Amino acid sequence: MTDNFADRLLRAVAEKKTPAVVALDPVYARLPAEISEHRDLNDEADSEAALDAVLEYCRHVIHVIAPLVPAIKINSAFFERYYSEGIEGYYELVQEAAGNDLVVIGDVKRGDVGHSSECYAAAHTADSEFTNLPDVMAPDAITLNGYFGSDGIRPFLEAARKDAKGVFVLVRTSNESAGELQDVATADGRKVHEVLGGLVAQWAQEPGMVGSRGYSSVGAVVSARDADTAKRLREIMPQSIFLVPGYGAQGMTAEHVAPFFKSDGSGAIVAAGRSVIYAYEDTKYLEMYASEWKKCVEHACKDFVADLKRVVKIG
Amino acid sequence: MTDNFADRLLRAVAEKKTPAVVALDPVYARLPAEISEHRDLNDEADSEAALDAVLEYCRHVIHVIAPLVPAIKINSAFFERYYSEGIEGYYELVQEAAGNDLVVIGDVKRGDVGHSSECYAAAHTADSEFTNLPDVMAPDAITLNGYFGSDGIRPFLEAARKDAKGVFVLVRTSNESAGELQDVATADGRKVHEVLGGLVAQWAQEPGMVGSRGYSSVGAVVSARDADTAKRLREIMPQSIFLVPGYGAQGMTAEHVAPFFKSDGSGAIVAAGRSVIYAYEDTKYLEMYASEWKKCVEHACKDFVADLKRVVKIG
Repeated sequence: MTDNFADRLLRAVAEKKTPAVVALDPVYARLPAEISEHRDLNDEADSEAALDAVLEYCRHVIHVIAPLVPAIKINSAFFERYYSEGIEGYYELVQEAAGNDLVVIGDVKRGDVGHSSECYAAAHTADSEFTNLPDVMAPDAITLNGYFGSDGIRPFLEAARKDAKGVFVLVRTSNESAGELQDVATADGRKVHEVLGGLVAQWAQEPGMVGSRGYSSVGAVVSARDADTAKRLREIMPQSIFLVPGYGAQGMTAEHVAPFFKSDGSGAIVAAGRSVIYAYEDTKYLEMYASEWKKCVEHACKDFVADLKRVVKIG
Repeated sequence: MTDNFADRLLRAVAEKKTPAVVALDPVYARLPAEISEHRDLNDEADSEAALDAVLEYCRHVIHVIAPLVPAIKINSAFFERYYSEGIEGYYELVQEAAGNDLVVIGDVKRGDVGHSSECYAAAHTADSEFTNLPDVMAPDAITLNGYFGSDGIRPFLEAARKDAKGVFVLVRTSNESAGELQDVATADGRKVHEVLGGLVAQWAQEPGMVGSRGYSSVGAVVSARDADTAKRLREIMPQSIFLVPGYGAQGMTAEHVAPFFKSDGSGAIVAAGRSVIYAYEDTKYLEMYASEWKKCVEHACKDFVADLKRVVKIG
């Protein structure tokens, strides 16, 4: 039987000695010239050709980062824009990343009322039960939107329990306007995202969710630049692993993310996307490697890992 | 040039003389026996066979309800569970419904940070710009999750403006646990969903959104069983058309939805799903039509329209 997701993720973090996660948000316009200029068939206006190029790029990125980090986060939005074939590509990359020993987080941000969430859970959290698609696997975990409350989340927890998967519920997001709703003060002196954090803490304790190290397969997506918020969220959700987005291109630094970790270095993983996967646009790496784009990505990923190491010691 | 979405929807409501909308949430296990037992290839365990059966059923439902109601809401969750081919089927049904003169609402509940929302908007709000997919059209409007605030919504508004589409932002949902987060009291005496309603009211006034009748292409999904909540939401979002789910199987009655309308009968559309599309499971209709399932659906749809007519007069 497969291990609990939280245990699996923590073990991968320990093995790679870093909580660094690479976020794969690929857009055609930023593909390296080697791919966008030198392929036989390449046309941004043709969905199949564009998707082929995007997938080729993604496979290279996966191979470059797999030895360096424990996990990858793949955002479904960037594949959905290529319609049904994009979805096929998304699942191919999930499998490719898993085959390269990466823990795979599907950044799908789904959420609906219960009977609809059951269908989303079948697609995104459970492995395929279709006889004609025996190999289609869901990611190890997905991101979820918790606005619907418990009955929208429960079908995902049931699927997660069955296949030893995990979820990360959006609690405090990294975007500039996140606070418009998420930071609104409540009558009992909390903030809206803390109320949701309290619900996550309850879901984290559901049967079958907590692993051998005391962490739950119900994690949370949290981002904030002040240590007080981080500390409060850590207190509200002691058993949840935090997925912290926003490092790098979105402006979060190692110092910003440090307070999301417990004193033993556990409790969070940090995702960097554009600052790593588009490192070949950065003059710092360009000067070192010129058009060798994969070396730029590799170096940026190592820099990301080293930067986190300054503030968080693993194992 | 295509009309503003709100104008288009209001015109369709006036033409059909009802604000009734059918919600298409098809699950294989509930397909009528005529489809699930009598097709050559039919196997719930095979995704292609199961999807074929589901799509055949959906096309029949569309043809039955198209003369009776102005709009259809198609929930992507029920197609995503069939992976890439399910997505292809979803877009086929969007086109089939539009070809039958229905306003089509894609119930996708997407939402993300800005640069990811751009991709979701390309997939779900904008019509295809790919040269190899010239005919793929997005629905007339989609549902959105507003937890990210303005910058998560804006890419959808831009796509909506360009192609005269609309959005319905989830404000107060119809599920039992909706209140866990959405009804939490805020420090300034509101509820969380009212704060989001206030943001929707701002988005509704963005350039290019308001149509000739004063309604905006930025609508809201709202559901509540008490008239006070409905009245307050109507005041907070005067320019938004409300999409009210929960009628029928989820327990909302015509009396519950009446307060969401303005005194002239405008301002809301009401969605019924399972009580209409699975009417052939209801002894009331079974006794009338036995195995003629399409007649059951047609009769239930007419009953739905008639029931709303008791409380809302159109035109």
